[in-house]
Amino acid sequence: MSAPLHDAPLHDPGWRGFASDNYAGVHPEVLEALARANGGHQVSYGEDAYTARLQEVVREHLGGRAETFPVFNGTGGNVVALTSVLPRWGAVVCTANAHIHTDEAGAPERMTGLKLLPVASPDGRLTPSLVDQEAWGWGDEHRAQPLAVSITQSTELGTLYTPDEVAALAEHAHARGMALHLDGARIWNAAAALGVDFRAFTADAGVDVLTFGGTKNGLLGVEAVVVLDPDRATGLPYLRKLTMQLTSKMRFASAQLLALFDDDLGMRSAAHANEMAARLRAGLEPGVADGSLPGVSFAYPTQANAVFVALPPGVTDRMRERVRFYDWDTPRGVVRWMCSWDTTEADVDAFVAVVHEELAR
Amino acid sequence: MSAPLHDAPLHDPGWRGFASDNYAGVHPEVLEALARANGGHQVSYGEDAYTARLQEVVREHLGGRAETFPVFNGTGGNVVALTSVLPRWGAVVCTANAHIHTDEAGAPERMTGLKLLPVASPDGRLTPSLVDQEAWGWGDEHRAQPLAVSITQSTELGTLYTPDEVAALAEHAHARGMALHLDGARIWNAAAALGVDFRAFTADAGVDVLTFGGTKNGLLGVEAVVVLDPDRATGLPYLRKLTMQLTSKMRFASAQLLALFDDDLGMRSAAHANEMAARLRAGLEPGVADGSLPGVSFAYPTQANAVFVALPPGVTDRMRERVRFYDWDTPRGVVRWMCSWDTTEADVDAFVAVVHEELAR
Amino acid sequence: MSAPLHDAPLHDPGWRGFASDNYAGVHPEVLEALARANGGHQVSYGEDAYTARLQEVVREHLGGRAETFPVFNGTGGNVVALTSVLPRWGAVVCTANAHIHTDEAGAPERMTGLKLLPVASPDGRLTPSLVDQEAWGWGDEHRAQPLAVSITQSTELGTLYTPDEVAALAEHAHARGMALHLDGARIWNAAAALGVDFRAFTADAGVDVLTFGGTKNGLLGVEAVVVLDPDRATGLPYLRKLTMQLTSKMRFASAQLLALFDDDLGMRSAAHANEMAARLRAGLEPGVADGSLPGVSFAYPTQANAVFVALPPGVTDRMRERVRFYDWDTPRGVVRWMCSWDTTEADVDAFVAVVHEELAR
Amino acid sequence: MSAPLHDAPLHDPGWRGFASDNYAGVHPEVLEALARANGGHQVSYGEDAYTARLQEVVREHLGGRAETFPVFNGTGGNVVALTSVLPRWGAVVCTANAHIHTDEAGAPERMTGLKLLPVASPDGRLTPSLVDQEAWGWGDEHRAQPLAVSITQSTELGTLYTPDEVAALAEHAHARGMALHLDGARIWNAAAALGVDFRAFTADAGVDVLTFGGTKNGLLGVEAVVVLDPDRATGLPYLRKLTMQLTSKMRFASAQLLALFDDDLGMRSAAHANEMAARLRAGLEPGVADGSLPGVSFAYPTQANAVFVALPPGVTDRMRERVRFYDWDTPRGVVRWMCSWDTTEADVDAFVAVVHEELAR
Repeated sequence: MSAPLHDAPLHDPGWRGFASDNYAGVHPEVLEALARANGGHQVSYGEDAYTARLQEVVREHLGGRAETFPVFNGTGGNVVALTSVLPRWGAVVCTANAHIHTDEAGAPERMTGLKLLPVASPDGRLTPSLVDQEAWGWGDEHRAQPLAVSITQSTELGTLYTPDEVAALAEHAHARGMALHLDGARIWNAAAALGVDFRAFTADAGVDVLTFGGTKNGLLGVEAVVVLDPDRATGLPYLRKLTMQLTSKMRFASAQLLALFDDDLGMRSAAHANEMAARLRAGLEPGVADGSLPGVSFAYPTQANAVFVALPPGVTDRMRERVRFYDWDTPRGVVRWMCSWDTTEADVDAFVAVVHEELAR
Repeated sequence: MSAPLHDAPLHDPGWRGFASDNYAGVHPEVLEALARANGGHQVSYGEDAYTARLQEVVREHLGGRAETFPVFNGTGGNVVALTSVLPRWGAVVCTANAHIHTDEAGAPERMTGLKLLPVASPDGRLTPSLVDQEAWGWGDEHRAQPLAVSITQSTELGTLYTPDEVAALAEHAHARGMALHLDGARIWNAAAALGVDFRAFTADAGVDVLTFGGTKNGLLGVEAVVVLDPDRATGLPYLRKLTMQLTSKMRFASAQLLALFDDDLGMRSAAHANEMAARLRAGLEPGVADGSLPGVSFAYPTQANAVFVALPPGVTDRMRERVRFYDWDTPRGVVRWMCSWDTTEADVDAFVAVVHEELAR
Repeated sequence: MSAPLHDAPLHDPGWRGFASDNYAGVHPEVLEALARANGGHQVSYGEDAYTARLQEVVREHLGGRAETFPVFNGTGGNVVALTSVLPRWGAVVCTANAHIHTDEAGAPERMTGLKLLPVASPDGRLTPSLVDQEAWGWGDEHRAQPLAVSITQSTELGTLYTPDEVAALAEHAHARGMALHLDGARIWNAAAALGVDFRAFTADAGVDVLTFGGTKNGLLGVEAVVVLDPDRATGLPYLRKLTMQLTSKMRFASAQLLALFDDDLGMRSAAHANEMAARLRAGLEPGVADGSLPGVSFAYPTQANAVFVALPPGVTDRMRERVRFYDWDTPRGVVRWMCSWDTTEADVDAFVAVVHEELAR
Repeated sequence: MSAPLHDAPLHDPGWRGFASDNYAGVHPEVLEALARANGGHQVSYGEDAYTARLQEVVREHLGGRAETFPVFNGTGGNVVALTSVLPRWGAVVCTANAHIHTDEAGAPERMTGLKLLPVASPDGRLTPSLVDQEAWGWGDEHRAQPLAVSITQSTELGTLYTPDEVAALAEHAHARGMALHLDGARIWNAAAALGVDFRAFTADAGVDVLTFGGTKNGLLGVEAVVVLDPDRATGLPYLRKLTMQLTSKMRFASAQLLALFDDDLGMRSAAHANEMAARLRAGLEPGVADGSLPGVSFAYPTQANAVFVALPPGVTDRMRERVRFYDWDTPRGVVRWMCSWDTTEADVDAFVAVVHEELAR
């Protein structure tokens, strides 16, 4: 039989890379919160003190009508959120880069029969006119009815919507009878970067329902569906359960999310990740400008915690042997470098050095 | 803004009841395991050291061909497991009391289109002849094809299958081209009660795929699909993802499961819960026998950590004001009393006293 | 290349059996109606003169608020009808013999995620108390919410609900927030047998939505979803299309259904089929009573166009070599003999003779 | 009660337009075939003489391994066909104009969980390089696995693939482990236009499964899924049933399809429709060239039975008051004019005159 594990971790706690903010672990303050929520019995499935408190805290931050439903992961949150605002014949306008279209293995379609209507976007953002490419045909039974718009904040390409841009999309959507969903897998990074509170670009901007991220910002693993307009979203408790997104020991899910609001932990962590991305970009910009990083260019603005860079052929795999990251768009040679709550200045500086070294070879 | 939470828990850590083993919290050794798995970066989605180790450990305990896929919860595990052994036209024979039929909100049907063929069972267990009530009609396109049998161990009624009984079902199923699935939400309680290793009533008995429980035995929240016959189950990685059951920071899911195998924690915890149920039953049996608990009878054998009791009218709600538990079968007056890893002898003795007091009124 | 077909049919138009009312062909008056509806262009997908007229005619016969949606087949009709009255978390109480549970290959579950809650019924009929076996648990997110009751008229076992019995079920269902669906695959046989108009056991009895049969009563192939309470059913046009039940040349579907109302064709045909079943039963009853048909018994009352008989072992297959019919319940030796619009008195008398001959051997 | 209908049609058999080939009725030879298939009993659900014969005839025309499954409509055929070649995690590369993406109300996604990966195409056709825009990421569980390519022949834009172009797509797909599906809603028009037999651009070109059209070419309403490579497609009988596409009186579905092969009816009808489209285009081309039809341009080549024309603002609705047709791309002012088996030269010439008149106003 296997030897006990409790003497030491199985992994090297000193290893970090730029692959994803979900390579990072759990913020120590979150582990403490889990320990505090432990002990004794709490009613399962949401009738516990932590989930009750979470309702209050989210209302303080996202709007007074907010209803919060912890779920397991982002895909689950997106599917539950979108399904709650759509009839069985509904369709969702999104970008062709949207996580719901590219990285959820078809869960929206397969789990609850959502039809996606993707439109190409240059920078990961939708605009009213991009929405209009697919927002038409209401009343035509042959066409999946476009009844929701989904945006991601910050986007999959590391860009941001201003509160006004969100508001314009909400107004556009609502005028056409469509709901507005916001995929907030990195909503903390967005809020930190914009320097506004959540409400400014969610409830106050007209977002109806959102997926509120936590895992990528230092949690062990929990997101939440937050309904901002309860008149538009129906059946949340049932939908969460039937999509297999209902956790039994919900106190621990809620305690994690609460920890992000406590002492501004979430905002501190996200701001730090954003700063590290800015530092990484700043470390490369001179070389991009002066040609000392030949063939390197920035693919998108760096507005949150991601840097997208086009690399010359042959460099990527060599660089990846030293620091882990992901390809983003192989034909174009674009790679993604993500910073997280635990990325250090030293990590960034060392990586900048690696980039220079590999391009100098 | 809300005050910080970090001074004290929001709940009373001294409160416990007999409602469910998922009212209990996380075993302290599991929290320690989470802390050890923390720090630094680990590749997400399963390419981490803890998940690799979990594969090995599960093979030691459940059979050398086992493939382990952590998932979020039991419903997710059951749906992924059953879907992996069924074509789109498959159906599942189960009891009318099966969790997949009664407590999963239709997830098996709604998420991946599984058809359930429930049969009435007197004690929560299937037998070959009960299976045959619905196992027929292969080749008839009008009939959802019965291609899997699902059993629960320990059952929803707190009863057990012996290894031989599982083997007989497996043989029966396989002879008809059907796979055998085991819902092991309380598989630790079953193993502890039977006094055998997992293999005896899973791989060695012919089970093809199972849902391996953890949450009800002191974890924060994780189960696993364990494929015992990889020739029968296909597409697991894709199915887990598209059913929204893939966790990003999987090291923490795997570390929880590993903790149960470490120092026999899982077996210790489950054995304790079983003992507490036995103590509870033993505390009531004299009163049931001698009439000092009038109108009280045991609904099923107590073979694991649950006691099912029929109470006389009027007593249940009064009793529940003092100790939390759930109705099981309202028309028959049957209630369920669950013990968990943290139930104490004092809890049991106090509850026995409550039962006597309320029936004496 | 293959020779032209137009000189002769490929089959023997003189061969008939007692297997199913869908072995029969198309009533000549229906073929005439198709020819009349032919010629020129008609707007497709329902904006044609025949579909408009069908709306009026159905309202005359089934109630003034009726909305009629032709669909391809009974399974499609049942799924569209039930889905239109259920949210994504709804479940349907039905008998364990219901066509939706036994003969639709899981389409209700797989196509739109309906959860079925089957209850055993002695004669194919539901009663309020049978409904209550599964009608409970509203508000509990773990339980698929029982929000519809589905009955079949005439039932799969050839029995009937009186208008009062339907009304009692409707009242019971509505009092619990459930809709009442009627699967009317043989609704013409029911109406003819009861001697009442459709309204008496549908709209006037409180049925909310029904599947209105046609194919089994002499059509080429069309049924209709008829919504009787449009306040309860939503999205019909979209649901019919997305379930792939929308025919393009709908004029021909509607013309078939209209033909059944024309000159009472449907009622004439159904009454004839019922009479043939009564004649068949009457031809066997003396032999069952006096023992000259040893081991033969009637399994259910013969109230419409089906006769269910238990045969002694060994006789069934021999008999089937001479006249085609289906097993119904193999363990019990029960077979089903169906009469159709084109069954003749001579067919029946010859079959009665066959039964006597084979039992005398 | 309503008056009998049998004296006269409810519609004007002399009215025709250019809206759709499914506005046309049933070819008289098809009605005759239905009458010949009538009479007596035939085993339902496909065990009849006409369906048996259909298997043979389709094999003569489409390849010796062909297996033919009549279904109700094109959407049903596409969904059954694609599902038969895809696992639950499969995705389909198609054009953004594909009927499966634009006009099936999300049925592929909602009924069997197919994920579509649409790519923009200038003329409705896919090429290997267009396929490659979405054909990547195999083995990545986050990405819906691109395992089928779907093309339409003739396309939704009235264009054609040559046999060589189909073969190149098949080779490209197969080399990547993908199946090739062909949506043949207008396969007769394609064959007639190409002047080749079906086999040349289906079985011989490497198509694995196709939807074989009939309704748009003079049938009452039937299509068929034709499996050309039975090693790639599984579960057809079950899939057809569970998607609610199985007709009971199948002899009439098969008889319709057989009628198209009889005396070359299908090819005659399709060739005629194609000629009428060519005549329509030819009637307009001089005016487009010499400016006497100001603002009019052809949107796509006219290779089958459709003419797509961009009209100047303000003309379309006026024109439509006189002759019925559909908008295709409202922002661009493009309309679609379809010819069918019953379009006459006089119809075309009159319509050409209407176009000239309205543009002269």
